[in-house]
Amino acid sequence: MINKLAIVGLGLIGGSLARALKKKGCVAEIIGTGRREASLIKAQELGVIDRWTLDLGEAVAQADVVVIATPTLIAEKVLADLKPHMRRSLIVTDVASVKGSLVDAARRIFGEVPPQFVPGHPIAGSEQSGVEASREDLYVNHRVILTPAQGTDTDALAVIRNMWANTGAEVLEMAVDEHDRVLAATSHLPHVLAYALVDALASNGSAEEIFKFAAGGFRDFTRIASSDPVMWHDIVRANRDAVLSSMDDFSTRLAELRAAIESDDSAEILDTFTRAKSARDEYFLSQYQVTTKE
Amino acid sequence: MINKLAIVGLGLIGGSLARALKKKGCVAEIIGTGRREASLIKAQELGVIDRWTLDLGEAVAQADVVVIATPTLIAEKVLADLKPHMRRSLIVTDVASVKGSLVDAARRIFGEVPPQFVPGHPIAGSEQSGVEASREDLYVNHRVILTPAQGTDTDALAVIRNMWANTGAEVLEMAVDEHDRVLAATSHLPHVLAYALVDALASNGSAEEIFKFAAGGFRDFTRIASSDPVMWHDIVRANRDAVLSSMDDFSTRLAELRAAIESDDSAEILDTFTRAKSARDEYFLSQYQVTTKE
Repeated sequence: MINKLAIVGLGLIGGSLARALKKKGCVAEIIGTGRREASLIKAQELGVIDRWTLDLGEAVAQADVVVIATPTLIAEKVLADLKPHMRRSLIVTDVASVKGSLVDAARRIFGEVPPQFVPGHPIAGSEQSGVEASREDLYVNHRVILTPAQGTDTDALAVIRNMWANTGAEVLEMAVDEHDRVLAATSHLPHVLAYALVDALASNGSAEEIFKFAAGGFRDFTRIASSDPVMWHDIVRANRDAVLSSMDDFSTRLAELRAAIESDDSAEILDTFTRAKSARDEYFLSQYQVTTKE
Repeated sequence: MINKLAIVGLGLIGGSLARALKKKGCVAEIIGTGRREASLIKAQELGVIDRWTLDLGEAVAQADVVVIATPTLIAEKVLADLKPHMRRSLIVTDVASVKGSLVDAARRIFGEVPPQFVPGHPIAGSEQSGVEASREDLYVNHRVILTPAQGTDTDALAVIRNMWANTGAEVLEMAVDEHDRVLAATSHLPHVLAYALVDALASNGSAEEIFKFAAGGFRDFTRIASSDPVMWHDIVRANRDAVLSSMDDFSTRLAELRAAIESDDSAEILDTFTRAKSARDEYFLSQYQVTTKE
């Protein structure tokens, strides 16, 4: 049970967390704060939060937990703004898609990573955004990755673990670097590729005709290129090294495949496509089985 | 009205064409042929065709139209097998995803492209395959591209146009090179990228963990990597030059984006992502409007 929970940033992610915890009845009061008054008013109208304030210090006074639910790059600013209001009994967590840059920022701001700071990343989202799109079941059967350090307070970790478990999520722990490397490969790289592909085609002189003949496969493949450009700009910048490394691994593989196509190496082309299909079918089948079991 | 229609290859594409034409009642008899007896037996059991034979010559005797509905590279072999059975009154069409290689093959086999050969490409498909997956509505509101040459018989063209129109498809004409270039960009390139990405991740030492954290965006993005590897191997080989050219355009754009990320060029990253999102949203919105109007 959390007595008072403060949420900074009432969008899809923060709003859905509030809804899930309210439904479960495991938090006494939820206070919203952030820079956009309209979102806070809307969140209270929708019953997502109990009250709101534009004053961060007021929001976290007497709070047990504060969740920084802003976009990735803004989370660093919120940490800095939190500094004068920090106390040992205030547990801090966040939802940023990149963990290394935020942990580095915490170290810069506080001198060391505060033991009551538990970095987190719920792997959930939607093409929609804003508190209006928030749902109490957004996290059900989704994964939440926490990246505690050696010095992280075990009680703080337990509270945040429990908070996410109450939303229906599966809570896992990973090292910061590992998190950022894995997410670069499975999420950040695909977004970069989709944006680059659509931009390459759109800048072609025959763009209109090219898109006219795009079928269902292309629509699925490029769906993530319709994601929020500002959010993804932030993520790519925050996770630069891991994103570049993922791009290089991919480009190396693509160059090998290009060479096979150019030299009409039938066996190599077929091997590559067959390996890829097998890997995708196998992993998604096993993931699906895990999900349905849950 | 087609009196006798022969279909070579009873899979999803050939089977769905047969079902659509039977439903519309615009063909008197459909004769199936091909190499896989089991598919032909199944097609007759399902009522997709009226009768079948393993003998291509027998299948096309007295036929008005023969549709080569085999995979891309096999279509060339079927054209060669058709040579001794060709007559001026037998209209020939096909469904191959690449048109240049098949037109070249026709020129090699017949000395010139026969005037009664109307190359075609229905832009429709499914992750499923086989005659069991065939549907009478597969082509409704989908595009079929015909790539006639200057010497193509206008009556033959009209018959094939009319045949596809009877399936509910929108029939368009394009030059062979243009078709292959546009399809390379919107279909062949995305498949190559999806296969390359999954293969790059699968060959990573932490593949299992990487796939474990793949979320919905990754699943959509890589769906086409679960497509039939043999079919796509054929397509990429048949359309080699246009595929290589598309890959190079993409790689150039990706390298520019990589440079922007490496130098932390915030404006350039944001511009690229924003342009891509706008292009995708705009084109798919306008395409959707066309589709709903039809």
